[in-house]
Amino acid sequence: MVVVLKAKTREEDIRKLTEELKKEGIDVCPVIGKELTVLGIIGDTTKIDPLKIEAHDIVEKVIKVQEPFKKANRVFHPENTVVDVNGRKIGGNRIAMIAGPCSVESEDQIKFIAEEVKKSGASFLRGGAFKPRTSPYSFQGLEYDGLELLKIAREKTGLPIVTEIMSAKDIEIFERDVDIIQVGARNMQNFDLLKELGKINKPILLKRGFAATIEEFLMSAEYILAGGNNNVILCERGIRTFETYTRNTLDLSAIPAIKKLSHLPVIVDPSHATGKRFMIAPLAKAAVAVGADGLIIEVHNDPEKALSDGPQSIKPEDYDALVKELKPIANAVGREI
Amino acid sequence: MVVVLKAKTREEDIRKLTEELKKEGIDVCPVIGKELTVLGIIGDTTKIDPLKIEAHDIVEKVIKVQEPFKKANRVFHPENTVVDVNGRKIGGNRIAMIAGPCSVESEDQIKFIAEEVKKSGASFLRGGAFKPRTSPYSFQGLEYDGLELLKIAREKTGLPIVTEIMSAKDIEIFERDVDIIQVGARNMQNFDLLKELGKINKPILLKRGFAATIEEFLMSAEYILAGGNNNVILCERGIRTFETYTRNTLDLSAIPAIKKLSHLPVIVDPSHATGKRFMIAPLAKAAVAVGADGLIIEVHNDPEKALSDGPQSIKPEDYDALVKELKPIANAVGREI
Amino acid sequence: MVVVLKAKTREEDIRKLTEELKKEGIDVCPVIGKELTVLGIIGDTTKIDPLKIEAHDIVEKVIKVQEPFKKANRVFHPENTVVDVNGRKIGGNRIAMIAGPCSVESEDQIKFIAEEVKKSGASFLRGGAFKPRTSPYSFQGLEYDGLELLKIAREKTGLPIVTEIMSAKDIEIFERDVDIIQVGARNMQNFDLLKELGKINKPILLKRGFAATIEEFLMSAEYILAGGNNNVILCERGIRTFETYTRNTLDLSAIPAIKKLSHLPVIVDPSHATGKRFMIAPLAKAAVAVGADGLIIEVHNDPEKALSDGPQSIKPEDYDALVKELKPIANAVGREI
Amino acid sequence: MVVVLKAKTREEDIRKLTEELKKEGIDVCPVIGKELTVLGIIGDTTKIDPLKIEAHDIVEKVIKVQEPFKKANRVFHPENTVVDVNGRKIGGNRIAMIAGPCSVESEDQIKFIAEEVKKSGASFLRGGAFKPRTSPYSFQGLEYDGLELLKIAREKTGLPIVTEIMSAKDIEIFERDVDIIQVGARNMQNFDLLKELGKINKPILLKRGFAATIEEFLMSAEYILAGGNNNVILCERGIRTFETYTRNTLDLSAIPAIKKLSHLPVIVDPSHATGKRFMIAPLAKAAVAVGADGLIIEVHNDPEKALSDGPQSIKPEDYDALVKELKPIANAVGREI
Repeated sequence: MVVVLKAKTREEDIRKLTEELKKEGIDVCPVIGKELTVLGIIGDTTKIDPLKIEAHDIVEKVIKVQEPFKKANRVFHPENTVVDVNGRKIGGNRIAMIAGPCSVESEDQIKFIAEEVKKSGASFLRGGAFKPRTSPYSFQGLEYDGLELLKIAREKTGLPIVTEIMSAKDIEIFERDVDIIQVGARNMQNFDLLKELGKINKPILLKRGFAATIEEFLMSAEYILAGGNNNVILCERGIRTFETYTRNTLDLSAIPAIKKLSHLPVIVDPSHATGKRFMIAPLAKAAVAVGADGLIIEVHNDPEKALSDGPQSIKPEDYDALVKELKPIANAVGREI
Repeated sequence: MVVVLKAKTREEDIRKLTEELKKEGIDVCPVIGKELTVLGIIGDTTKIDPLKIEAHDIVEKVIKVQEPFKKANRVFHPENTVVDVNGRKIGGNRIAMIAGPCSVESEDQIKFIAEEVKKSGASFLRGGAFKPRTSPYSFQGLEYDGLELLKIAREKTGLPIVTEIMSAKDIEIFERDVDIIQVGARNMQNFDLLKELGKINKPILLKRGFAATIEEFLMSAEYILAGGNNNVILCERGIRTFETYTRNTLDLSAIPAIKKLSHLPVIVDPSHATGKRFMIAPLAKAAVAVGADGLIIEVHNDPEKALSDGPQSIKPEDYDALVKELKPIANAVGREI
Repeated sequence: MVVVLKAKTREEDIRKLTEELKKEGIDVCPVIGKELTVLGIIGDTTKIDPLKIEAHDIVEKVIKVQEPFKKANRVFHPENTVVDVNGRKIGGNRIAMIAGPCSVESEDQIKFIAEEVKKSGASFLRGGAFKPRTSPYSFQGLEYDGLELLKIAREKTGLPIVTEIMSAKDIEIFERDVDIIQVGARNMQNFDLLKELGKINKPILLKRGFAATIEEFLMSAEYILAGGNNNVILCERGIRTFETYTRNTLDLSAIPAIKKLSHLPVIVDPSHATGKRFMIAPLAKAAVAVGADGLIIEVHNDPEKALSDGPQSIKPEDYDALVKELKPIANAVGREI
Repeated sequence: MVVVLKAKTREEDIRKLTEELKKEGIDVCPVIGKELTVLGIIGDTTKIDPLKIEAHDIVEKVIKVQEPFKKANRVFHPENTVVDVNGRKIGGNRIAMIAGPCSVESEDQIKFIAEEVKKSGASFLRGGAFKPRTSPYSFQGLEYDGLELLKIAREKTGLPIVTEIMSAKDIEIFERDVDIIQVGARNMQNFDLLKELGKINKPILLKRGFAATIEEFLMSAEYILAGGNNNVILCERGIRTFETYTRNTLDLSAIPAIKKLSHLPVIVDPSHATGKRFMIAPLAKAAVAVGADGLIIEVHNDPEKALSDGPQSIKPEDYDALVKELKPIANAVGREI
């Protein structure tokens, strides 16, 4: 951490601030220039709140030089984390293929799609039971009934199930019934929920908030890790920008960035990022090429009738073709599908 | 709603889609051009999900022409909503002055600040008991003890208290103990929480998510209103942009926009928007000039020692001076402080 | 400037880099922690390119602590710059009122509007002769004929004229014929044009690019100042964000920010920022309240027939009413209109 | 185009507007609902300025349903454009590999790098002679001398040269000496320059402005095409978002979007987008996988000594390894390198 002091700060005030900072268990090294004085802060600064220092009248600004996350940080955990989901791995050499409808709609629908995507090579089934919708008047999901249908589809296909949690009050049920608990983009900073998820041992699929920086994303993972749950899988799903042609802008740079900063696996969701069916295939290919550990893709047998997210869902036959096209790209970057 | 069809769509497919749409209880009026066919959708479209229509292969895009919010919409509720908080009004002629520390830190602190801001003319006391923090290692608030201290300060000064809720599980306590329940920017789309707040009758101060459009902001208010709670106060607190000089970019255009679109009162939080003490006064003045119904400002007796948000807190004497400076501006726009 | 080195950098490499840096005429002060080494750079760093340092393999990142602009910097020029335009001042106590149509359309139009806004209290006339348009098929302005019409309106009313330059090849004509040369948002980083404008002595109205940070904005001013032309007036006109309700998001925080960082006068353009007529008055009031040195507002006698920017133009009678409403706000912040 | 009228608009006013619109040579088809009236506009609307319609008091908003670009539009030109540069094609099956230093620095440097990248498989040489720099105090390029050095490198290697133009006054020299004239991101809406480039017949490499929408990008291409020059190559190079980890956010979704909307070839610049060396390889792979027609990559023999953009330059040996790794990905998407 580097503390930049205001011009013409008196020596006495510098001494006072230095002493105050040292009380926090860190070392302070002043760099005194003609026009500018900065204090270099040495030691473990993850627990120091830069805003507390910036609140001093003599401080111009505080600049962080170390990442504020610790357990999520590759520096302290150099090897990749591989999350084990009932024996299937996410974060290893094999690219995790997660597929299924946006919403669970009926037993027939979820069973049919689960079998189709399994045939094509998917190893996890996604499906929304609780749906976060911008409008209170939109379909909100089948809720607990949807969970039951997912369980039936799992029994039928053996595919572990991934579904979104929307309230901490459901954690017990999700812990019992679900294989990977998804935290949606809108809840990425629902700290109350993150803390509760840190107390269990289930794999958590944490989606990046559409306005979250990579650092904030990793800090949200840190909340779960700090609670003791190491099974965190990150998911890039597009960020909000000025561009309106796509729903969001898929930030594929985030994949190499996260791989450098953290040891956690990171997958990509091209369906939510773009909102457009014709873009899924090219962006899925790009995601594999850039180094993602997995893909979560919306597949629906009848997108025109889908209760949610129809425009971005592809049909089972398109998914099948896509998986085939992805394989040589995975091989080209030393991975398997 | 306007449905733009793809070029060269067959008449038969247009007829099929038209029939399907009519089943939803709306009227369809086709506009057929040489290069382009569009379907005008007439009737109550608030319950139609545009994505369901867009999922059809023959549909190029769906364009909304009506606002998707209904209870929050000024069209259906032309007069201003005035929220009553224990006899004090928000949304009327008098500008609501809400002030207090970012976090409640101790009995002495909150009592002292409450008395100071009251003397200066504040009519509501703010103070965080539960704090949403980016880092799990930062001070998370005094939590339930903080609520108790707020109650003591209220008893001492008579100022109604405003504080943030972070979990639906606390609603009962907040309903009993708090005068205005704040929903923070990060929880603006925590729909589970919004639904629960729709069931009670307390005033809710809903902050705009830092990446929420004005329409999404009003849709979140709609969640609360749709549940039956009409006491919603909106709060603009800055949006995330590419500019890094300020913490966020205060979007003052949102005030006249919301005033036009909705009947709900809207206040401004210049403290969180900028993160910088020297900007509070000019932006508070601008907020009053632009037509805001209130101001929520962080005041701390010793910002350098504040447990959170020190850099953006002003001292009681600065707050006192500011209130005096705001009065002629309020008068110039036909309001009072 | 602070140079953060990669973990485990060898002492020898630090020494080599330090020596290399010292050759550039700056001092280097190393701060060596257990996990992290940073180099504090002392001296005049405005001419050091941080990217050249960051290109070294051992460097993690380079953090600037001083503003990169010098002539535009308030530190080296504490008193406000007041620009003199034929005896009228911009940047002093009186708020500069600039008004007129988006485009010059005819002699009658520009003369009529000029006389109207003059009666209402405007002291400068704006009007576009060369128009930057997104589409090559839109009206591109009357060009040189437009300049002639502006001169006629100036002769008739005595109002100095402000109009946009789009090409360096026109500088000679603009220098001779125009009182304030405007550089539009899209040309804010047309460095070739800025360099040429630095060589003349005319007042330049430099608009902020809609995606320019405050620092980049001041660096563009620095280009003009560095060339020897000190008559730079800045103009905030909205930045591009994710919000689509308004054309751009007017960044009023930029006014106190620029006032702190620089000595240059800064005015506000609410017309282009919002693109909506009903927002002009509230945002103009906010701009005066926040401390702007002037307002540039589009006024058109017949907005429905305007050849450009009709939706954001107000009528002369609205402008007249607005100026009256602005006066008490100006007085409240110690200014005059 | 769809014109949404304000609620309660009188029939007479609708009739008047309809007549006015019909005079522009378009057809108007009214859709009259209970709460809302919209006018469907049929015919060639590319020359209609939506703002002129929106300026009417009775108009709520105008919604475009057709793309405003015509010559750049795939609808009117279904087959891909392939640009011929001295016999080498851009836009065909072979992926165009453009490489070279950010700035031309010396004869030895440009000759050495040109030979190296040619050996690795590059077919075009890039190198900046005129450099747009945020700071007037940064290295501005060797200018005309730089052009001469590029010509020497071309003679030596046979590689066509790509370099940026910064001023319309240089067009004659660029037309004579350069093989592909680059328009930088900051000049994407320098309409004066675009118009001049439309009058010549050289290939133009048009970079997307970092805050330009895809539509605005295509409209800038339209300026060149409308002038008669069909040899336009587009280049995605990152957009400005709230994320600060990377310099800009590479928008790879723009590639399939542009391929759908337009027939023009589009290449990717991962160097400027990220500003970070370690990201070039993964993003170059993603760009090929997503369907880009080419890659422009900064290569420097000694990045630590580069006069500009060192942190994002890779070494010749890294470029060589990258080209080898890209080949199987190109093959996987049916292309060649």
